[in-house]
Amino acid sequence: MKGQVTFEVTASDGRARAGLLTTPRGTIRTPAFMPVGTAGSVKAMLPENVRATGADILLGNTYHLMLRPGAERIARLGGLHAFMNWPRPILTDSGGFQVMSLAGLRKLDEGGVRFKSHIDGSMHHLSPESSMEIQRLLGSDIVMAFDECTPYPASEPTARASMELSMRWAERSRAAFGDRPGHALFGIQQGSVYPELREESARALRGIGFDGYAVGGLAVGEGQEKMFEVLDYAPDMLPADRPRYLMGVGKPDDIVGAVRRGIDMMDCVLPTRSGRTGQAFTRRGVVNLRNARHRDDPRPLDEDCTCPACTGYGRAYLHHVVRAGEPIAMILLSWHNLQYYQELMAGLREAVGAGRVEDFAAAFHAARAQGDLPPL
Amino acid sequence: MKGQVTFEVTASDGRARAGLLTTPRGTIRTPAFMPVGTAGSVKAMLPENVRATGADILLGNTYHLMLRPGAERIARLGGLHAFMNWPRPILTDSGGFQVMSLAGLRKLDEGGVRFKSHIDGSMHHLSPESSMEIQRLLGSDIVMAFDECTPYPASEPTARASMELSMRWAERSRAAFGDRPGHALFGIQQGSVYPELREESARALRGIGFDGYAVGGLAVGEGQEKMFEVLDYAPDMLPADRPRYLMGVGKPDDIVGAVRRGIDMMDCVLPTRSGRTGQAFTRRGVVNLRNARHRDDPRPLDEDCTCPACTGYGRAYLHHVVRAGEPIAMILLSWHNLQYYQELMAGLREAVGAGRVEDFAAAFHAARAQGDLPPL
Repeated sequence: MKGQVTFEVTASDGRARAGLLTTPRGTIRTPAFMPVGTAGSVKAMLPENVRATGADILLGNTYHLMLRPGAERIARLGGLHAFMNWPRPILTDSGGFQVMSLAGLRKLDEGGVRFKSHIDGSMHHLSPESSMEIQRLLGSDIVMAFDECTPYPASEPTARASMELSMRWAERSRAAFGDRPGHALFGIQQGSVYPELREESARALRGIGFDGYAVGGLAVGEGQEKMFEVLDYAPDMLPADRPRYLMGVGKPDDIVGAVRRGIDMMDCVLPTRSGRTGQAFTRRGVVNLRNARHRDDPRPLDEDCTCPACTGYGRAYLHHVVRAGEPIAMILLSWHNLQYYQELMAGLREAVGAGRVEDFAAAFHAARAQGDLPPL
Repeated sequence: MKGQVTFEVTASDGRARAGLLTTPRGTIRTPAFMPVGTAGSVKAMLPENVRATGADILLGNTYHLMLRPGAERIARLGGLHAFMNWPRPILTDSGGFQVMSLAGLRKLDEGGVRFKSHIDGSMHHLSPESSMEIQRLLGSDIVMAFDECTPYPASEPTARASMELSMRWAERSRAAFGDRPGHALFGIQQGSVYPELREESARALRGIGFDGYAVGGLAVGEGQEKMFEVLDYAPDMLPADRPRYLMGVGKPDDIVGAVRRGIDMMDCVLPTRSGRTGQAFTRRGVVNLRNARHRDDPRPLDEDCTCPACTGYGRAYLHHVVRAGEPIAMILLSWHNLQYYQELMAGLREAVGAGRVEDFAAAFHAARAQGDLPPL
């Protein structure tokens, strides 16, 4: 893999930024939304169609892939890009978040986490070193440091201990990652809702030095208001010349708020997960297609959207296939939702370039305030 | 709808025929395989992708559509073609077969069949007259007469009584269908495995006069050998200048055998249903991708196939997504199977045109006899 990973901020508007994150596998336009391809597939989508919605990069989950089909197997098969037919950049998480969310057996100590597979009950261990090795085997372009995502709420002493552990793991991640031209390693800031802990964490990460920085420990149940409170200060503690990644976010209004607060990258399962349950995101808010009010409605989900769900079908059809459990329902709605998210990101990038992010945000909220389409 | 439905036999080779069945919505190249879109969707496929595999016509199920979303609703929404975004020809069955397969309450008499919806338990009635009306509301291009599919095995007296009922219903179907330019009505031959009953049925249908004729009562558990025995004589009893449709068939070797015996049209859920359970049809036979032998195999399912499953992925990936229950598994395998079926039909049409159907069939069986790919 030739070339380096570089990041250029091409425009800014208030705290919002637009930029280009370039990797040997392609350039990511920021602010970027990364669809999640948990187990080697963005659920219910072909990768060429994910690309067609405007995605520059996907996220893969280390936890799922290490258990099935296994990182060594993926490496033997030519790496995750070839395996899943996505030649463009892939970011992988460290596996830590999923492992620590496991309801069953898991044991955390200074070395790492021992846990039981949800698939077959087999025992596994993740550490900064093994997470780096697994992400290397997968062929990830952007590797995440192994950390502990501090649960919410956490007292200040608990949050401090957790953050300090993550910083020791960040140092071990950096050492284990080594020198891999063309691949980037991102550090993850922790510190819960405590500004002084966020600053200590940022200082530790800056001292180690990463190619990008994530704001971690958010979108874990604290709610949008508290999340925005942290984003009011936390991203600014991270180097301005590096991409800032908010993990696991979010709803469309979370995204607009995060971009206004200086975030460059996000990921979330919401567009695809909602698509599988009959929920569609539109400029006028969320539409639940399972609702009986759609059953005779010939109008498209969104008359201005160019996705296959909106150009080929009426709401009545979408309602029918959701109710009937037809696979086309999840295909069409996942596609629509991903396209909505990517168009939102394109709008935000354009607004930053034009210096009118606040106008964009105001129009975004005004359209949603109108509510869904009036009754027929 | 302007124009008429016409059928032209363009070539024949032995009993096999190739032809063009033209409707105002498009021309169907025969022998034709019709993918099944039971409830307004060919499962796990977008209609434009079904078309891309080479399909000229889809089949819709009257039973499913009348119960949900309802024929009147589909009519109000502009008909089934607009509803499901398939502008080309659609054939609908009469609903009879599904209704009579219902395990729960159903009561058949001279008038028709009373039955209970499998969706909500509501009571419904189907008769030659109501089936014609429902198929008219759906906007079907090729309407099937309402009949009783004689169960197998049936004694000669039972088969005779059932066939005679179907012939009375055929007459009522013809009368209820009326004169609908641009739409075709097909009659259905019954008579089980009894040549004299098949001949009586054919004579009755010819007397009524239809735009096409189906060989009914096959593919209901009698096995390929018995089915071919009936196909050795039954299609020839039907008018040679009209299309002959074998309902619910079948596996690839059933199709080759049926075409050799003079069949022009077929339909089956097998390519999509098998695709949803990890089974793939290939020139070298059926491949069960769930099998562990594929888990490290980088080779494509079929190196000569141009479908997305074969051009984008190895068997190891397909094995992984089948095992993981990822929706992409059913998307890719349904697509592959439909494309395999359509390429089989294209090969048969070409072979009939070139007068080498027997060579085609011999090569077809020889490729399958080789078995699946050798171990790595």
